[in-house]
Formats: sequence, C-alpha cells, structure tokens
Amino acid sequence: MTSEAPAPRRRGRPPRAQAEAGPGARERILEAARAEFAQRGYDKTSVRGIAKAADVDAALVHHYFGTKDEVFEAAVEMTLEPVQLVPLILGAEDDIDGVGERLARYFIGVWENPATRAQLLAVFRSALTHEAAAKVLRAFVLRRVLERVAADLKVPDARLRAELAASQMVGIAVLRYVIKVEPLASADPEEIVRMVAPTLQRYLTA
Amino acid sequence: MTSEAPAPRRRGRPPRAQAEAGPGARERILEAARAEFAQRGYDKTSVRGIAKAADVDAALVHHYFGTKDEVFEAAVEMTLEPVQLVPLILGAEDDIDGVGERLARYFIGVWENPATRAQLLAVFRSALTHEAAAKVLRAFVLRRVLERVAADLKVPDARLRAELAASQMVGIAVLRYVIKVEPLASADPEEIVRMVAPTLQRYLTA
Repeated sequence: MTSEAPAPRRRGRPPRAQAEAGPGARERILEAARAEFAQRGYDKTSVRGIAKAADVDAALVHHYFGTKDEVFEAAVEMTLEPVQLVPLILGAEDDIDGVGERLARYFIGVWENPATRAQLLAVFRSALTHEAAAKVLRAFVLRRVLERVAADLKVPDARLRAELAASQMVGIAVLRYVIKVEPLASADPEEIVRMVAPTLQRYLTA
Repeated sequence: MTSEAPAPRRRGRPPRAQAEAGPGARERILEAARAEFAQRGYDKTSVRGIAKAADVDAALVHHYFGTKDEVFEAAVEMTLEPVQLVPLILGAEDDIDGVGERLARYFIGVWENPATRAQLLAVFRSALTHEAAAKVLRAFVLRRVLERVAADLKVPDARLRAELAASQMVGIAVLRYVIKVEPLASADPEEIVRMVAPTLQRYLTA
C-alpha cells in the first residue's frame, strides 16, 4: 500500500537554495511541517517556520508544496497513511463476520501508538478549529478512504455506513485521548475493541 | 430539572460598579461569556473582554465567578444544561427497549438547533485545544451526567457504557457538524436516528 513518494511539484525555476538542500530536502520539509502543525496548530504554523525547522529556504517549501494549505495537505496525507489501509482491512479476508473486530483493533492500535496519536490529534485539532484544515481533511477522507470502502462493501448507503463507523472511532478518540473522561480513558484497549466491534460490524454489514 | 441559579459567590467587598450593574448583571455576564467563548475560543477570551461585552466592570465578573476558568465552567454548565436531562430520558419511561432511540433523537435534536449547536461547538473546540477547558468539561460530564446515568442503568460497567454511547454521538457531531463529511453532513436526521439507535441501545442495555 505504501507507494513511492509522488514526484515533487516544480513551480517556476528552482530556487537557489535547492542545490544546497540536497536530495532529502523534500522529506525533511514534510517531517518538519508535520511536527510544526502538531506542536503549534494550524493557525500558528507558517511556511517560514517550517522552512526554518527543516533548515531550508522558505522558497524551497513553496517550490515543493505551494501554499501553507498545500503543505498541510501533504502532512495530512502522510499522517493518515494508515487510514488508507482501511479498505485493505475490509477486503483482506473472506471473513466478513470479523470485519468489525479487525477494524476496531486496527484503529485502537493506531491511537494507542503515541507517535501516531500525536499526529492524528494535530490533524483533528486543526480541522476542528480551522475551516481550511477541515476542507483538506474532508477531501482526503472522501477521496482516499470512503470511495474505496464504498466499493468494497456490498450494502446500500455504503458511504454513510462507513462514516457512521468512522464516527464511532472518532468519538472514542475524542473522549479517551483528548478529553480523557474516565473510565474510558483508562479502559483496557481489548475491552474497548470487544464492546465496539459489534457496532462497526452492524454499520458495515447489517 | 432546571433549578434556580445558585447564589452568586461573594469575594471580598463588592466592587463599586455592582450597584450600577443592576439585578440582571450576573445573567448578562454569563450570556456575554458564552458568546465570547463561542466566537473567540477559549484562548482569546478574557475576563476584560467579557466585562466589556456585558457592559460591566471587570471586577464584577471576578466578583461573581472568579477566574477565567471559573467563568468558563459557569458557561459550560449553562450550555450543557440539556445534557443534564439525559438521566431523565433514561429513567423517564419503563420502555427500556426505546431508550436508544429516545437518546439518539434527543441528541440529534440538540445539535440540529443552530443556537445550541454553536454553543456546543464552542465548548468542544475549547476542550479539544486547551487542557484547562478539557478539565472543566471532564469534571462536568463526570459529576453531572455519568454518575446519574450509572445510577439509572442496571448493567455492569454502566459508566463505561454511558461513555461509549456518548462517544458515538460526539463522533457524529464532529463528522456531521464540524468537518461536514458527506453524505453524513446532509443525511436526514431521522435516518441517522434510525441507524444509531441500536448502537446506543446495545451499549446501554445489552
């Protein structure tokens, strides 16, 4: 599923700094962008700040990614890469009865990993507070996940059902990892999987 | 359920401005606080700004409510008043089979009302981006809702179950009203109630 990085966009002539930046510059910028958005939030992150953190010229950031929104889009794609695996999980085995449990365990696993969790939280916080970020997330989820899930599911209203399943996992993420309401915040991950799996199963197949 | 407003806290001597502020000042401050938190977010709202919007002295805001966190707490209580009705909904009728549907319809109704929705969004955005606000929301939900719901439900792990039900509604609110992912954003409210009610029913009673 993990494909090679797409060819960098080239806008106008390459900035002078590019030669010095070296071949890993694009990846370094993307990592810096992700860290900046995670630490500062969408609002306070700037192309200039990303460039500084990546130790390159701001022109190089523009050259590879374009505007701040477009850098955010690239960071979201990188962060939500695991989410793109969801259609694979749905279609991976013929065991349709186990799809709810597989999906619940996969999502909880992604959130239980502190590194992935921090990135996901940054994306969600940005989307919840800035319409521009929400738009990027919306487009990504629609294009990269829902269309594929809908193609795999053999039920009517497949997209709506996929979103209801997603909403259950988003809500758990908010209450468990962000607001940290007890006892959900300290509940055993396997207990959550056990209780949530039938919900996902019903949305996706019933 | 709606009780009278608690007696205002009195700290030190009343500020001079109080006499001029008149008897409706406390309510006016609370409304102004709610509007300020909703419009500006937790971070950018100040006691001074609230006082200005309510047309009173900042000392009077401190006098009635204390710190900014305490004003936020009072605003959250006022906003989440509908949530306090949840235990009533659970215990209202002997029809335990209908509890999931009643709860789903009640929550969707609160979110479909544009006035309530704006207030709820303000509270959630604040809690998602500021730990101080998350703490206030967490304490409110625990003390005012979960303890009562847990007392009404005759199942083991009643609090965890109540939170899972809440997480489903929170997730729908995020995807439908904040990120606005289609087709969920435009789905008929009754269709959502129909699909979500069995989820809530299972969490709360099965």
